[in-house]
Amino acid sequence: MSENLEVISRHRCFEGTQTFYKHASGTIGLPMRFSVFVPPQAEQGRVPVLFYLAGLTCTEETFMIKAGAQRRAAELGLMLVSPDTSPRGAGVPGEDDDWDFGTGAGFYLDARREPWSKHYRMESYVTRELFELATTVLPGDPERAGIFGHSMGGHGALTLALRHPGRYRSVSAFAPIAAPARCPWGEKAFSGYLGDDRSQWAEHDASELMARASMPFPEGILIDQGLADNFLELQLYPEAFEAACQQAGQPLTLRRHEGYDHGYYFISTFMDSHLEFHARQLKK
Amino acid sequence: MSENLEVISRHRCFEGTQTFYKHASGTIGLPMRFSVFVPPQAEQGRVPVLFYLAGLTCTEETFMIKAGAQRRAAELGLMLVSPDTSPRGAGVPGEDDDWDFGTGAGFYLDARREPWSKHYRMESYVTRELFELATTVLPGDPERAGIFGHSMGGHGALTLALRHPGRYRSVSAFAPIAAPARCPWGEKAFSGYLGDDRSQWAEHDASELMARASMPFPEGILIDQGLADNFLELQLYPEAFEAACQQAGQPLTLRRHEGYDHGYYFISTFMDSHLEFHARQLKK
Repeated sequence: MSENLEVISRHRCFEGTQTFYKHASGTIGLPMRFSVFVPPQAEQGRVPVLFYLAGLTCTEETFMIKAGAQRRAAELGLMLVSPDTSPRGAGVPGEDDDWDFGTGAGFYLDARREPWSKHYRMESYVTRELFELATTVLPGDPERAGIFGHSMGGHGALTLALRHPGRYRSVSAFAPIAAPARCPWGEKAFSGYLGDDRSQWAEHDASELMARASMPFPEGILIDQGLADNFLELQLYPEAFEAACQQAGQPLTLRRHEGYDHGYYFISTFMDSHLEFHARQLKK
Repeated sequence: MSENLEVISRHRCFEGTQTFYKHASGTIGLPMRFSVFVPPQAEQGRVPVLFYLAGLTCTEETFMIKAGAQRRAAELGLMLVSPDTSPRGAGVPGEDDDWDFGTGAGFYLDARREPWSKHYRMESYVTRELFELATTVLPGDPERAGIFGHSMGGHGALTLALRHPGRYRSVSAFAPIAAPARCPWGEKAFSGYLGDDRSQWAEHDASELMARASMPFPEGILIDQGLADNFLELQLYPEAFEAACQQAGQPLTLRRHEGYDHGYYFISTFMDSHLEFHARQLKK
């Protein structure tokens, strides 16, 4: 598998290593890119690994450039992995037409509708193929994995953590699309990728999944949400996820921040506390 | 002057404010953009201000997105200001042809050759117009200003600090073009902007300026340089600046870092120590 991994670029960073990879993904059926920060502690053996899923229009570069996460990750000994947000060049008619569907908007699920279903398989890619690369060829510890993300990637982190019990021991999100089955972004993505059967949608909606779970993360879930976020009212519905957590007996720390918006100046402000939240659970 | 400042975007960040401005610059004769991080301490009065000059091809956004400086600046109470790297749309024939001359490559000097001399006046812009904006309309303290930068911006920081005694109380650089009169980037810029008279070049070469100074910064100068920097041998010449500092009796901390390259993963790694270096001098 390692000969399949092509290094696009590599940079020394906080005494660790920042690398951008390209590989022929068997799951996606196309070349995929992802980024990895390996902390200096990996010289002594496998380290806890934290997957970050980015939002609409982003790439595998966004988090590593903008979030300012490497400094604290290096201190805590956390490996960071961030995939691209969709297949690229799948050749589906119209895939580049919209910024919130198709390219850059894979929504971290496996599409069921043709022609999307052939390549748009981000859930299998992230939870299986990328997870395996990160914990075999690369020095992540498969027993100490966490996941977090932003906006569409917050939806991805919450749903993948809930749909794959035991895979991720910790989960958090920044301004997640917390109830996609009821918001315009989610309705567009789910009808396009999954079809009209709303029972399928419920399988990829964090609030609906949580409502029928039973305290899946006993050590809690952390969500940060800016109150000056332009997408808050129409697209995000943190209150729906909050209600679902109450129903499920799931401890949730949902912090609402006056004045903060939807972008990476907000994310970077609260990045350290997310890394610390994950490290506390992954280092046990 | 304040009605002249147009806010392009504003974001809450580390309990301070990240703002991107546009204004009609009298010095440049064109609209200019710059970015400002105001720390929370500015609510109590004027704060020390640190100017960051970016490198070739960069803009006023680069530093604020990639350097991860706001967290520590907020803790230290430092205001950060970063200008664009050249005029935009000056209409000089050929200004967009090369990435290392013209647009994105103003070299932080006032051009003497026509047609560049009309708009390419980055030295006056940074040291006068931007300085005044930062310390009148905006809450920077004119008595507590420092300057730093990267590559072309490291050249800018060192030369502007040396050419304007008393304006900047502290100066540091990441991988500066430390002896531009003898490297290809500098030769191209100086011949293009200044002409063939090499005595003019010496006025904008940090190593030549330092060699004839007398300990202009008694509290020292800080420079970080990666040893895996592809531009080190041909373009940067830190050893020339080091020799000039010895000649001038100028204390210099020049740190050479194994494995680090020329990019922002290098810069972000050592950002905190630069901010602390400036804060120590500016808070006295």
